Amino acid sequence: MDAHSLDTLIQSLRRLPGVGVRSAQRMAFHLLQHDRAGAELLAHALQQAVAQIRHCTQCHTFTEAEICATCLDPRRDASKLCVVETPADQAALERTSAFRGRYFVLMGRLSPLEGIGPRDIGVQRLIARASDGVVQEVILATNFTAEGETTAHVIGQALKNRGLTVTRLARGVPAGSELEYVDLGTIAHALADRR
Amino acid sequence: MDAHSLDTLIQSLRRLPGVGVRSAQRMAFHLLQHDRAGAELLAHALQQAVAQIRHCTQCHTFTEAEICATCLDPRRDASKLCVVETPADQAALERTSAFRGRYFVLMGRLSPLEGIGPRDIGVQRLIARASDGVVQEVILATNFTAEGETTAHVIGQALKNRGLTVTRLARGVPAGSELEYVDLGTIAHALADRR
Repeated sequence: MDAHSLDTLIQSLRRLPGVGVRSAQRMAFHLLQHDRAGAELLAHALQQAVAQIRHCTQCHTFTEAEICATCLDPRRDASKLCVVETPADQAALERTSAFRGRYFVLMGRLSPLEGIGPRDIGVQRLIARASDGVVQEVILATNFTAEGETTAHVIGQALKNRGLTVTRLARGVPAGSELEYVDLGTIAHALADRR
Repeated sequence: MDAHSLDTLIQSLRRLPGVGVRSAQRMAFHLLQHDRAGAELLAHALQQAVAQIRHCTQCHTFTEAEICATCLDPRRDASKLCVVETPADQAALERTSAFRGRYFVLMGRLSPLEGIGPRDIGVQRLIARASDGVVQEVILATNFTAEGETTAHVIGQALKNRGLTVTRLARGVPAGSELEYVDLGTIAHALADRR
C-alpha cells in the first residue's frame, strides 16, 4: 500500500474516543471497501455539526438555536433547576417523565486528573443562572461516581453559600433488584438514607 | 436538545463498524465539546480518501496510483504470488521481511453467510493474474479461520485446475509457545504436518 490519504484517514479516525490503531484500520477498510456512501455522509455530517451546533445560552447544552427548545418551553417549571453532566444524562431523566423543570448541563464533570476545573464546567455560569430570582431549588443530578460526587459537592457548597436550596438525587437500592446481589456501598447508603 | 445536525452526526457515526448508539453519542459529544478541529480533520480525510483511493490494477490493494508501489518494485520476485485477505494481512507479512515476491489482495474472504461469493473477492482476476506466464508459485496466506480456510480451498482448486503450483502457509505451534497451553487443533495439525 502506498496511499497517503489512507494513512491520514486512519490517523484522523484515531481521534475518536475509544478507537485505537486496529479499530481505525478496520473502519477505514470498511468505509473504502464497502461503504463509500457512508464515508461521504459522515464527512458531511461532521462539517454540518461543527458549523451549526453551539451551546444554549441558558442551559449550555448543544443546540442549533441561541436558546434550546427545553429552555424556551413555557410549560416547564422555572423554579426547579436540575444540574446534569451531559446531554445523555438529561435525556435519561427526560425519559422518566418525572421532572418538568429546567436543566443546566455542565458538559462534563470536575476531574483534577484530567485538568478539568470549575471554569471548564461553567460553575460561575451555573451560579448566575440559579441566582435569577425565579429558581427556588437546584437538584444535583451528576453521576454517582467519584468525580460526579465531587462535582455535586463543590457545586452544592457554592450554591448553598448564596442561600439557594440544593438537593441531590436519592441514593439507594435500584428498582427490581434483590439485596443479595446489590453491592455493599449501595446498601449502606440505602440504610443511611432510609425514610 | 433540539439539534438536528447532532442526530444526523450520531446516525452517520453508527455506520462505522463496531459503533453502536452509545459509542456514537460519546464520539459526537467528544468531537463537539472537546475536539472540533479533529472533527474537521476527519471530515476532510474522509473526503480525500474517497476521492483518491482506488484499487491497484495488478494486486487489487488500496492505492492512489494505477499500480501500487509493491507491484511496481522491480526488485521483487515476480515468480511468487502471495494471496492475502486484506492490506493489514499483507502488512503483517511484510513486517517479517521473509517474503520478497508479489501479492494479490482479495479485499475480503468467501462468506456465504454474508453473501460474499467468488466474484466479490475477484477470483477470476486472481486466476488471470496468476496465469501471466511469469508466476510459478501461488502461496495462499488467507487466515486460518473457517472462512479463510474455505477461501484458500476454493482458490487453490481453481488455480490447480489451471496447472499452477499452489502452496499454503504452514499450520503449527506458534514460536515461543509451550505445548501445555496450545489448543488441541493446533497440536494435531502440527503433528500431521511434521517434517
